[in-house]
Amino acid sequence: MTTTTTAIPESHRDMLAAPVVGTLTTVGADGYPQSTAIWFLLDGDVVRTSLLTERQKYKNLVRHPRGTLFLVDPTNHYRTLEVRADVTVDDDPDLAFLGRLLAHYGTDLASFPAPTDGRVVMTFTPHHVVTNG
Amino acid sequence: MTTTTTAIPESHRDMLAAPVVGTLTTVGADGYPQSTAIWFLLDGDVVRTSLLTERQKYKNLVRHPRGTLFLVDPTNHYRTLEVRADVTVDDDPDLAFLGRLLAHYGTDLASFPAPTDGRVVMTFTPHHVVTNG
Repeated sequence: MTTTTTAIPESHRDMLAAPVVGTLTTVGADGYPQSTAIWFLLDGDVVRTSLLTERQKYKNLVRHPRGTLFLVDPTNHYRTLEVRADVTVDDDPDLAFLGRLLAHYGTDLASFPAPTDGRVVMTFTPHHVVTNG
Repeated sequence: MTTTTTAIPESHRDMLAAPVVGTLTTVGADGYPQSTAIWFLLDGDVVRTSLLTERQKYKNLVRHPRGTLFLVDPTNHYRTLEVRADVTVDDDPDLAFLGRLLAHYGTDLASFPAPTDGRVVMTFTPHHVVTNG
């Protein structure tokens, strides 16, 4: 069963609350969608992630602030959640958000192998949400 | 390690050869990326899937024939394959392609629960391929 809404429905919130890998897609300047695997945090009614400002997906979102997060339930491939979102950028003073994100995935800033300089918080506010299963 | 190329590299062909679910993203008329889970078939140097012409993703691809297939290795979430592709549409006489696709996933036309009318073959020719892991 497919449902569409403008917010994250209770029926599929569990998929965003678990520490799983999601697919984030942005749109490149050449018009091709660009997809990558990301860690994210459900924060009330929005979803947030941490990006390096040198990354192409960050540049894409600044130019075209519409991005989509897609998840497939690993235990049931017919259960999916698509969050088409408007995207905003904020600073991450003292990397407080990155620390929260890493804690959700069972790690911390001291253990994190990726760069921590030039980190911003990207907030995905749902515009159109599609669920299956 | 991230690599970029214009064709599907040998190192990650196994991810497309397995009967797994991939994420296909198209771009809607409103500019938001739209992602869905799809079955697909690696066919030499291209990837193909079967779509119903009534579906939004088909309409998106006709209007904007650039789509991206993204896979995460279920056994290693750091191993990913992104295929940004140019997309073309062909008829599927006698549903020959759909039959091949279903056989790859261990089923057949007689058992397939989705509609078989208005089916076309979508061919994804790699434009830019990014691999990790």
